[in-house]
Amino acid sequence: MSTTPETAAVISPEALREHWQGHRRLTRRVIDAFPEDQLFTFTLGGMRSFGTMALEMLVMAAPMVRGIVSEEWAASWDRQALPKADLLREWDEATAEIDTLWAQIPLARFQETTTAFGQFPGKVHDLLLYVIDNEVHHRGQGYVYLRALGVEPPPFYERT
Amino acid sequence: MSTTPETAAVISPEALREHWQGHRRLTRRVIDAFPEDQLFTFTLGGMRSFGTMALEMLVMAAPMVRGIVSEEWAASWDRQALPKADLLREWDEATAEIDTLWAQIPLARFQETTTAFGQFPGKVHDLLLYVIDNEVHHRGQGYVYLRALGVEPPPFYERT
Repeated sequence: MSTTPETAAVISPEALREHWQGHRRLTRRVIDAFPEDQLFTFTLGGMRSFGTMALEMLVMAAPMVRGIVSEEWAASWDRQALPKADLLREWDEATAEIDTLWAQIPLARFQETTTAFGQFPGKVHDLLLYVIDNEVHHRGQGYVYLRALGVEPPPFYERT
Repeated sequence: MSTTPETAAVISPEALREHWQGHRRLTRRVIDAFPEDQLFTFTLGGMRSFGTMALEMLVMAAPMVRGIVSEEWAASWDRQALPKADLLREWDEATAEIDTLWAQIPLARFQETTTAFGQFPGKVHDLLLYVIDNEVHHRGQGYVYLRALGVEPPPFYERT
């Protein structure tokens, strides 16, 4: 419906990277807000634990960017519960890896089509937005878990 | 950290509009999935009802785009519970209004800084992403409510 060409700019690569990393800083705080003994055990409505959701985020994040850069799609989907400190350490390693790999994505690549992990076809920028949205979606669920546990979650608008 | 200039394209205006409207179609299905008598009453963890969260989305969505286009910032923050059919009708009206207004946003406008509703300063593209993220965040919470109510939520990846 818009007549704007697909090549016109709304969000730069750097702005998208910073947007995502802002979300990831908040998600890290949500993980950290969970009591150690509830991270991989507490659930509502028969859903997964927040720890399991956080592992899904981790499995999708850096491996997605790696695949976009290299077309080598490898992810370890079968992850088991681990201590919070170990999860946070992996989170921080992924943060650094995303930054390093991001700088290697050619500008034109964001508009290309690929099949992430051999099963999810889409434009590169949509695949990245999907990973971000999936994180925001499940983190919102983590907020409900924390509230139900009587823990005040970190403010949603705080991303630094 | 990236050397890509802020003017480089990752996501076009049309792609961002379609991305958002895809989310809005999913959120509409989540609203519709709630039993009428639970939409504004069911809560977990002392949080707001999903109906109240959906009203917040509605109050932010079209008024945000209107403000971006006109710098006239008006939102009716004090909204009361209403029948699901009325909420869905307002949702559809907002969908059409967003499409109409979106076409009036000049390309350069997305990089400008403004103060949304007189209180939220930011770049236009970040303000739009905030509204989208806020919707995804609260919709994720709606998924927990639905699961706790024994209702299967619509699939997250389905946006058509």
